[in-house]
Amino acid sequence: MTLQLGTDETLLKALRRDLPAAALSTGPLAAPYATDRSGSHPYGLPLAVVHAANADHVRTTLRHAHALRVPVVPRGAGTGLSGGANAGVGTVVLDLSRMNRILDLDPHDQIAVVEPGVITAELDRAAGEFGLRYAPDPASAAISTVGGNIATNAGGLRCAKYGVTRDAVLGLDAVLADGTPVRTGRRTVKGVTGYDLTALLTGSEGTLAVITAATVRLRPLPEATATVAAYFDTFAEGAEAMAELTAARLEPSMAELLDGPVLGAVDEAQGTDLRSRGGALLLLQCDGRSAAAEAELAVRLLRDRAASVETTSEPVEAERLLSARRLALPSLERLGRVLIEDIAVPRSQLATAVREITVIAGRHDVRIFTFAHAADGNLHPILVLDPASQDIPDAAWQAAGDIFTAALRLGGTLTGEHGVGTLKRRWLADELGPEQHALQQRIKAAFDPHHILNPGKAL
Amino acid sequence: MTLQLGTDETLLKALRRDLPAAALSTGPLAAPYATDRSGSHPYGLPLAVVHAANADHVRTTLRHAHALRVPVVPRGAGTGLSGGANAGVGTVVLDLSRMNRILDLDPHDQIAVVEPGVITAELDRAAGEFGLRYAPDPASAAISTVGGNIATNAGGLRCAKYGVTRDAVLGLDAVLADGTPVRTGRRTVKGVTGYDLTALLTGSEGTLAVITAATVRLRPLPEATATVAAYFDTFAEGAEAMAELTAARLEPSMAELLDGPVLGAVDEAQGTDLRSRGGALLLLQCDGRSAAAEAELAVRLLRDRAASVETTSEPVEAERLLSARRLALPSLERLGRVLIEDIAVPRSQLATAVREITVIAGRHDVRIFTFAHAADGNLHPILVLDPASQDIPDAAWQAAGDIFTAALRLGGTLTGEHGVGTLKRRWLADELGPEQHALQQRIKAAFDPHHILNPGKAL
Repeated sequence: MTLQLGTDETLLKALRRDLPAAALSTGPLAAPYATDRSGSHPYGLPLAVVHAANADHVRTTLRHAHALRVPVVPRGAGTGLSGGANAGVGTVVLDLSRMNRILDLDPHDQIAVVEPGVITAELDRAAGEFGLRYAPDPASAAISTVGGNIATNAGGLRCAKYGVTRDAVLGLDAVLADGTPVRTGRRTVKGVTGYDLTALLTGSEGTLAVITAATVRLRPLPEATATVAAYFDTFAEGAEAMAELTAARLEPSMAELLDGPVLGAVDEAQGTDLRSRGGALLLLQCDGRSAAAEAELAVRLLRDRAASVETTSEPVEAERLLSARRLALPSLERLGRVLIEDIAVPRSQLATAVREITVIAGRHDVRIFTFAHAADGNLHPILVLDPASQDIPDAAWQAAGDIFTAALRLGGTLTGEHGVGTLKRRWLADELGPEQHALQQRIKAAFDPHHILNPGKAL
Repeated sequence: MTLQLGTDETLLKALRRDLPAAALSTGPLAAPYATDRSGSHPYGLPLAVVHAANADHVRTTLRHAHALRVPVVPRGAGTGLSGGANAGVGTVVLDLSRMNRILDLDPHDQIAVVEPGVITAELDRAAGEFGLRYAPDPASAAISTVGGNIATNAGGLRCAKYGVTRDAVLGLDAVLADGTPVRTGRRTVKGVTGYDLTALLTGSEGTLAVITAATVRLRPLPEATATVAAYFDTFAEGAEAMAELTAARLEPSMAELLDGPVLGAVDEAQGTDLRSRGGALLLLQCDGRSAAAEAELAVRLLRDRAASVETTSEPVEAERLLSARRLALPSLERLGRVLIEDIAVPRSQLATAVREITVIAGRHDVRIFTFAHAADGNLHPILVLDPASQDIPDAAWQAAGDIFTAALRLGGTLTGEHGVGTLKRRWLADELGPEQHALQQRIKAAFDPHHILNPGKAL
């Protein structure tokens, strides 16, 4: 007599048979893998977590899940902010954080080949030993993975000059939904054979394939860096000053703009005295052999507009100036539960966008703090919510919706670098339009006809 | 009594009805639109050429062609080198060269919106009036179109520092095979909503959709430029010197390496005396505020390896130094019919690749001249054939095949920037592998289920 097993049991049995015992977590052990850092929660707990140690484990997991039509949620470090790695009841989490080896680092070709679970900052550090760096630097670089960064096409502070994650990825080893391995791209900096699936997979939030290795481009470390900090009376004045720097054809490697409420929150948390110096702080970094000359030009241009300007080429002093940006999010997290938004607008619309965010905050009576990657037009309005409420209140959803609508009206996008995940799906069609939305769904089906890869995310 | 029309006649009748008379060429008037500059020829002449003046003409043409399953070949200026715009019997050429308006050029946002038929150099010139430039600069920039450059993801001389066409394209208006318009991407420099269809369409050689407008990124013109010319005894020594510059973390905006036979051909055509100075010439350009300092460093590094080095920051003198590169192809075209190849290898493999090309030339008794975008590892071996032969001789095909095989063995690609077109299709699967090849065909079907868009190309 054979026991008739349900789908879940059949899958677990197959995974137990074909994977090492240490590669599988079930029951309460799966709980820590159910959510990312978005603050949103799926219904229930995942069926199991597979801690893949190599590409074979990934293939085995997908092969079985595909045969049984069980949803699979790929996961790096779980630091995403849009719910892209949230895993609810009936799903298998494919945890790639143990695939964390740097397989190759070639200083002559200035490339590295890494497993997806390598921590981004560790790759950067390893490249640094050869005078190189991995340019993409999301604020989460110390805790997020290269694979997760690729899945969201993560941005960061250096994007203005060095581009986003997509610009650093040359090729991918990936496994399709049915377990088929493919290798996209190449080890060369140029190449146009076939469609650019490397770029297509970058930013696809685990819905098209699971990345098992990435070939990435490294870049020379800059010879020098110079830092400028300028205070303004209002955020709008800071944004206009940034527009003037852009018009003067300056290309800073970093341009962070913090609003007055953020400065106040940092003061409150850290005992500093930033808010009294102005209603906005613009932090610039210039790098390369002409860093000092560029910083000097920036100071000259900012002097008439700013309440105060200071500059330094000295690393410790630079760190002091930058600490306000670094401490912004932790300081806000002390005030309540944060919902981190992520719109981008054409660079000239930065000041307008912040004015609209202020109006929206008032309309819905929600506290919103904003900082921006100013040279990119990428804003992070941070909604600070009552820590007691488990769910996101309606007023916050409405405020977020109004922010997205404003971004689209200004010619922008509802996510600059964090991804759509689950949180922004309801606005997705507004940005894509029905024809492109349908086309994207056909592309999804070409990769994953049974929709087992991260269903309910991104698209 | 109604006349029973064949498919061709039905289509022509519909196009005559729905398009202005001036938008349609048939018969011998279609002949100039049958080939690109690859030197390959399709069988017969196209059925008709539609000279689209706007996106509606594109939609109308595709709608009718799709309904009748007639192949459509999109065409910019026809300057492609891989047969991608070749149009044989029974096809409709969709000529986009009359859609040549710059619709918007916004110096504050540093973007332009252009129709696909805008000549690349004209966009660059228009941007120049605002102290900006359009960075992608294929050697054909003076005669090729932005749309054609996007279709092939064209490279150029500045790629080493500024990236390829894909890196400059932010969004596209495109029409799908059945006439449905879609708008991909955005006007912002960052954005991750949905799959990156902008990148997917870039380099898809007209097989996925027809581009009717492009939003592109502009960049500041560099403050200064410095040029270095260094002669070496052999190409391999020049390639090794380039590797040393890369290892020293120099990022020239241009690094062109010409072999001895190319120098000899330039001498013969122009009456110069380059070949006597060495067996290879490396031309570097550094740009930005530290251009002179970078050029000085390059000279210092090259001095021990080179037979001679010279440098200048003076534009006329720089032009004189660069003229050898500029005159290379015209000089080779005097010697016979040229077949321009386009492999890329990891940067460290440049010298090895050229050694292999020399062996291959000897093996098949084919004359091959090589120049390279040295900082990218992108080589252009130019096969010079008997001008009398109409077809490409077998020995040339075999030599080309051996070159591609060598490129793949060295970790490279069979096309760095020109595209697959028709000429390289027979080697495509070798690079992609069967699984990725099948996946790419499924993506093609998601865009164009009846395969009417540029069939027989790219994939």
